[in-house]
Amino acid sequence: MTHEWDTFKLMKIIDKINRCKQTGEHCFSFEYFPPRTQAGVENLYARIDRMGRLHPQFIDVTWGAGGSTAERTMEIVTHTQNLSGLETMMHLTCTNMSRKDIAAALCTARENGIQNILALRGDPPIGEENWEQHGDGFSHAIDLVRFIREEHGDYFGICVAGYPGGHIENPSYERDMHFLREKVDAGADFIITQLFYDVDLFIQFMKDCKKMGIDCPILPGIMPIHSFNSFNKLTQFCRDIPEEIVANIQAIRSDDEAVKDYGFTLVKGMCERLLEAGVDGLHFYTMNLESIVTHLVDELNLIPEQVQRTLPWRRSANEKRLQEEDVRPIFWANRPKSYIQRTMEWDEFPNGRWGDSRSPAFGELVPHPWGHVQVHPKRRKKMWGEAPETFEDVKSVFLKFCEGDIDAIPWFDSPLELESGRILEQLLKLNEAGLLTINSQPSVNGVPSDDSSVGWGSPGGYVYQKSYVEFFIDGRHIETLIKVLKRHPSISFQAINKEGTVYSNCDTVNAVTWGVFPGKEITQPTIVDPDSFVVWKDEAFDLWLYVWGALYPAESPSRELFQQIYKEFYLVNVVDNDFVKGDIWSVLDEVVKAISS
Amino acid sequence: MTHEWDTFKLMKIIDKINRCKQTGEHCFSFEYFPPRTQAGVENLYARIDRMGRLHPQFIDVTWGAGGSTAERTMEIVTHTQNLSGLETMMHLTCTNMSRKDIAAALCTARENGIQNILALRGDPPIGEENWEQHGDGFSHAIDLVRFIREEHGDYFGICVAGYPGGHIENPSYERDMHFLREKVDAGADFIITQLFYDVDLFIQFMKDCKKMGIDCPILPGIMPIHSFNSFNKLTQFCRDIPEEIVANIQAIRSDDEAVKDYGFTLVKGMCERLLEAGVDGLHFYTMNLESIVTHLVDELNLIPEQVQRTLPWRRSANEKRLQEEDVRPIFWANRPKSYIQRTMEWDEFPNGRWGDSRSPAFGELVPHPWGHVQVHPKRRKKMWGEAPETFEDVKSVFLKFCEGDIDAIPWFDSPLELESGRILEQLLKLNEAGLLTINSQPSVNGVPSDDSSVGWGSPGGYVYQKSYVEFFIDGRHIETLIKVLKRHPSISFQAINKEGTVYSNCDTVNAVTWGVFPGKEITQPTIVDPDSFVVWKDEAFDLWLYVWGALYPAESPSRELFQQIYKEFYLVNVVDNDFVKGDIWSVLDEVVKAISS
Repeated sequence: MTHEWDTFKLMKIIDKINRCKQTGEHCFSFEYFPPRTQAGVENLYARIDRMGRLHPQFIDVTWGAGGSTAERTMEIVTHTQNLSGLETMMHLTCTNMSRKDIAAALCTARENGIQNILALRGDPPIGEENWEQHGDGFSHAIDLVRFIREEHGDYFGICVAGYPGGHIENPSYERDMHFLREKVDAGADFIITQLFYDVDLFIQFMKDCKKMGIDCPILPGIMPIHSFNSFNKLTQFCRDIPEEIVANIQAIRSDDEAVKDYGFTLVKGMCERLLEAGVDGLHFYTMNLESIVTHLVDELNLIPEQVQRTLPWRRSANEKRLQEEDVRPIFWANRPKSYIQRTMEWDEFPNGRWGDSRSPAFGELVPHPWGHVQVHPKRRKKMWGEAPETFEDVKSVFLKFCEGDIDAIPWFDSPLELESGRILEQLLKLNEAGLLTINSQPSVNGVPSDDSSVGWGSPGGYVYQKSYVEFFIDGRHIETLIKVLKRHPSISFQAINKEGTVYSNCDTVNAVTWGVFPGKEITQPTIVDPDSFVVWKDEAFDLWLYVWGALYPAESPSRELFQQIYKEFYLVNVVDNDFVKGDIWSVLDEVVKAISS
Repeated sequence: MTHEWDTFKLMKIIDKINRCKQTGEHCFSFEYFPPRTQAGVENLYARIDRMGRLHPQFIDVTWGAGGSTAERTMEIVTHTQNLSGLETMMHLTCTNMSRKDIAAALCTARENGIQNILALRGDPPIGEENWEQHGDGFSHAIDLVRFIREEHGDYFGICVAGYPGGHIENPSYERDMHFLREKVDAGADFIITQLFYDVDLFIQFMKDCKKMGIDCPILPGIMPIHSFNSFNKLTQFCRDIPEEIVANIQAIRSDDEAVKDYGFTLVKGMCERLLEAGVDGLHFYTMNLESIVTHLVDELNLIPEQVQRTLPWRRSANEKRLQEEDVRPIFWANRPKSYIQRTMEWDEFPNGRWGDSRSPAFGELVPHPWGHVQVHPKRRKKMWGEAPETFEDVKSVFLKFCEGDIDAIPWFDSPLELESGRILEQLLKLNEAGLLTINSQPSVNGVPSDDSSVGWGSPGGYVYQKSYVEFFIDGRHIETLIKVLKRHPSISFQAINKEGTVYSNCDTVNAVTWGVFPGKEITQPTIVDPDSFVVWKDEAFDLWLYVWGALYPAESPSRELFQQIYKEFYLVNVVDNDFVKGDIWSVLDEVVKAISS
């Protein structure tokens, strides 16, 4: 079991690598490049988030040749570091960059929470093979390493590139090794190598490094083979590909599947040999592709069997948030990126308690009408209906989502993960009855903190939850609903429509998830806060109209259906405060019966 | 059951009286006067604290005639308001006071957390019956009421005196009633009457007030009869004592017991009639005596059967603390006044959590070497030994304290209150083995918050505790102790000697009492904090030497015994983090066995 909890203050990748060495965990990482289009970027986020669930120690994103995709690189690393909660290393190259531009890029990266830089000279821009350094720039990676250390001291973790076969432009392996030694001496923390397919070459490289007195971690760069064409292209960057491999692939070049199979077996075998040789980790060049790398880390048994969550929700990798933030409203549980974006500008984060006097009030939230939607626009109509016309059509989408037949609705960044079978059955019942559920959790009464389904935090503790259900309901049923809820003294509720009409029996902050740990104060990471609910309902209602309804032409019956829901429905949250003996489902059963009759 | 918890922000006595009216609770209050000597004051504090456990709605302290005991009054009200946690009304009289002195007294009272004033003209100083008002002062209580409202707006609750038989100096009852009406119109919140023994007279007074349009609460002043002499003296202030009563007492004047019995029956009967007549409360003139009033409120069934504690520890009545403070270190649990004194100057109080970054660090604690000791110096030697010479002598004092044979040791403000029989047995065992216990609590796993023994906070919640034991141990046994404790993974401990040598396996704040309530964040009112423990150990060790040891002559064998303990003992705190399945007593049994062998 991997413990996310003890990485609390481990932001530098070098510390993570060293920690893995101590615990015997496998360190692995994924490299991406910035896509050319904004749609491609959105797609990549969903992919990175899915691959993030494999628990790589870090990811990294390349810097466009000549700085051409610099802005996009910055956008992506900021997103994955802060919103996806993945420790993200940004590449930075000297190529075509003035000293001023480099200084600015480093400052922006730092402001955006980036704490690790891969310092490269960079490849010459395509078509500019006779490239020379920028008049006011740097000619070698070592200058960049020195510059980062001069300007930012110890703030950044720095990685540099190693060339097991020697640098393609550099005739002398010895000179390469000398430069590498200099880069490490100048302040680099670890090395990632250029791709290779000759394991012996890498093992020799490790030995040579040792001989040279380079004793920082060295991560071999692994390039899976996706197709003959891509393999062929790569060989430009990598001399010393064993002739046997080139020949084997040439022989099957016209059979895509055969190339893939051969490549997979080859690369898996390489990784196994590297692991046996005791490498410090494996760095995968994903080429922004998901399946082969996912399959590889799975087959290599690199994925931790169980990851102990620090908190019930996934934390941002932003350093300030990591240090401070341990309380969030439950409302954004399924749209965490939207919550992080809304609170990005906060100076302080709730720590220990949500409080009435929280420093950054919700009034100061960055306007953020409906936030990021993870689903690619093209897929939305397919999942949510080509032309829904009745409430039944809408209901069926919620039912399909519960059943797992579709993997997103606007209120969820990712597929529904249910903690128990009972909840699924109950949610289906509620949705069937027209209570469209968008959030829920079961009650938990003192389960050990290392429980595989609801556990979180350090071992030896106990975790608790109050049961929670949140749903939309037709305004016609609101009086009936409230009447039933009021019969149950252990129930706290709030119902609100878009306009702001409220029914509620509570006005204080309610902790709904908390944990008791040895030698610690009580942690209460999830709360229900009446004020935040008012902010959340705007987002929740806007998603109906601007994300779902907007798929259909103006004035179409479909669009009007969503306008009607937007105007007439209520958003309701229900907490059963009795986490010991309460039964929220029987209360909601009563609601269903009362509405039906 | 009375709920202390909903008095959270009820600081004005008028609000408390009105709340009692609504809930049907009995409102009663105790009046004290400032003793002449400092020893008398110390004695009074202990008495007030004991009587405070009867749960009067408030107490009040008279202002010396002519302001002569003004400073002592201020000292006492500050103590009882802040340290004893009793809502305290300060008397203030015009007599012999300049406007400037009155203004200063009000400001000082406000600074000291007083929020209720009984505004009086005051009796003429003894021997100055021809007293006239101060040149620059006020001649009537109404001027004082107006002045308070002018200077302090609504800040203070104001009470004024009523005279059921008419004011002794005032020939006209009608004029008295007119003045009373004017005082209420000027801003008084409620009325306390001069003593009387004619209930009909009081009932008539109530009716007359109503007729005059005086509709604020009126508390009858009740003067128990302690002796013939005191009764005789009082009659000076009170005309209209029924002749029958005077005759009856005259008849038995030489028999003290008979006077007391007669007086008790008489006053009890009066109170019963008043309660039947629906008075707003009973105000007792205690004459600083404890037994008769205690007996009276008991016989009248005024004492709430069970008081639901807001927090596990008694809160200060200081407004700022009431609003904010809800976390304290467990170390001062039995010396709460010392803790409050140490933290008196803090600008903020821990709220929701103790935290690492608490605003007023312990470094800024007001120096307070060993704090207030509730036991009268004369009683100390009697309880703690005339000339203890061996450790066995000292041990026997701890054993006697556990058994209830003596009611104080230096580390306890008040007698030991044990939550269960099992603990007593275990504590005796530990003390017998030389582990001198000064603090403990049992583990509690989710008991309803209204539980009569360990409950606290609002109803419908669940409360929890980690078991805790704190004791002194001879330094010779420290290694053995630590070895045993380290065998048990659920145990957190800290051991420290006067010099500051530490053995510990924890460095974070540990919540040891917490509660989960409907619609609230988690409350964690008691914590074990390693930093605070270092501060507490100085107080705990100083009590050995400067409070107990100092009873014996310098260089006597007794004094040397305490010097030796001071130098050679360790103070140890032990928490069992497993509040579900842990058993701290079996761990400590192991310690006892290891030490004995």
